[in-house]
Amino acid sequence: MESHGNLNPLKLSIFILVSFEALVLANGRVLLSKRPDPTDAAAMSRWLASENSWGVLSTISSDLGGAPFGNVVSFSDGIPGKGRGIPYFYLTTLDPTARNALKDKRSSVAISEYPLGTCGKIDPENPKCAKLTLTGKLKVVDSKSTEAKFAKQALFSKHPEMKDWPEGHNFIIFKLAIEDIFLIDWFGGPKPLTVEQYLNFKM
Amino acid sequence: MESHGNLNPLKLSIFILVSFEALVLANGRVLLSKRPDPTDAAAMSRWLASENSWGVLSTISSDLGGAPFGNVVSFSDGIPGKGRGIPYFYLTTLDPTARNALKDKRSSVAISEYPLGTCGKIDPENPKCAKLTLTGKLKVVDSKSTEAKFAKQALFSKHPEMKDWPEGHNFIIFKLAIEDIFLIDWFGGPKPLTVEQYLNFKM
Repeated sequence: MESHGNLNPLKLSIFILVSFEALVLANGRVLLSKRPDPTDAAAMSRWLASENSWGVLSTISSDLGGAPFGNVVSFSDGIPGKGRGIPYFYLTTLDPTARNALKDKRSSVAISEYPLGTCGKIDPENPKCAKLTLTGKLKVVDSKSTEAKFAKQALFSKHPEMKDWPEGHNFIIFKLAIEDIFLIDWFGGPKPLTVEQYLNFKM
Repeated sequence: MESHGNLNPLKLSIFILVSFEALVLANGRVLLSKRPDPTDAAAMSRWLASENSWGVLSTISSDLGGAPFGNVVSFSDGIPGKGRGIPYFYLTTLDPTARNALKDKRSSVAISEYPLGTCGKIDPENPKCAKLTLTGKLKVVDSKSTEAKFAKQALFSKHPEMKDWPEGHNFIIFKLAIEDIFLIDWFGGPKPLTVEQYLNFKM
C-alpha cells in the first residue's frame, strides 16, 4: 500500500474512525457551526433552528375535536449557514396539518438538539439537551412575493428532493409568524428571550 | 502489524468503516428489531413507538391563548423489545406540558423514523420515511397502581438517568390514552389503522 505513505494499518484505522466520528456527531450531517454557549439564549435558539432540518409542527385538529395535532415535517429558516430564524414549510392540503392551519392559524414548531448528535449520552428530556418551541401563527406565503423566493431557496437548499415533489399535490409555502419562544438549554426553566432578540440575532 | 494477519490497511479500513456504519444507522443506538414492511401498518407503528425514545408531545397551551404547544419529551412504551404501544411520560409541573394536560387532557405525541437512521438519504418529510402521531388524552397514572410499576420500569429502562432526577421536582407519570392513529410510511396518505389493531399487535 505505497499510496498510504508512512501510515501503518492501525494508525490509518484510528484516523478513519476519528474522522468518521466527527461526521456522525451530527447524525451523518456536518454541523454548520459550533454549539453556542447555553448562557446565550438567542444564539442557542437560532443555532437550533439553523442546524435542524425537521421538527414537529402542531396545529389544532378540526377532525379530532380540536386536539393539538403534532406532525413530523421538514423546515428551513434559510440557506445553510444563513438562517434568519423564521421557519418555512412546504406542505400540501393532502396532509391534515395544512388543512388545519387554513382553518385555525394557531401553531407551534418543536425542535430538539438530540438528533443533531451534540447531546452526547444525555437523555433527550434532560434540560442540558437543548429544545426549542416557537409558537405563533402558521401563514401561507404569497407565492409571488420576494419572501416566497427566499423561502423556496431556503427549503430547496436544505431539502433538495422537494423541488421534484409532485406538482399535482399543490405544495404551499407556509411560515410560522413567531409570537412566543420557549427555550430550554440548561437547568432553571425556560430562558427569557423575546421574539425581537431572537430575530435580530446575527449568526 | 502481525496481529492483523492477512488484512492489508485498505481492507482493514473498509472493514472498520462498514462495521461502524451498522451502528450509526440507529444514531449510535442499535435497533432492537428490523424495520417492518411498510404494508403492515400495525407492525410499523408499533415499531416506531418501540424503537424511539423521544418525541414531541403537544398540548393545548392555557398560557398561549389555546395554541397547540409541542414540547420535546422522552417516553417509553415498555422495557426494550417488550413495548405495549402505550406511551408513558415522566413530566413535572415545572414544565408547561404537564400543567396544560392537568387543565385540558387533549394531546398528541409525534414520532419520526428519521432519527433512528433507517430513512437513509430520504427527506424527513418524504412519506417513505415513516412518521406516527398518536392522538388522545394525556392522563396521570395513579402512582400506587400496577400500571405505574410497569410504566416506571418502561421509562427507567430506556431512560436510566430519570431515576436520579430531582425528587423536589415531583415528576408524575403520564400516559397517552390513544384515540386516533395517524401513520404515514408510504405514498397514498395515512394508513388505515384502528386503536385496537395497534394495541393488539404482538411484537
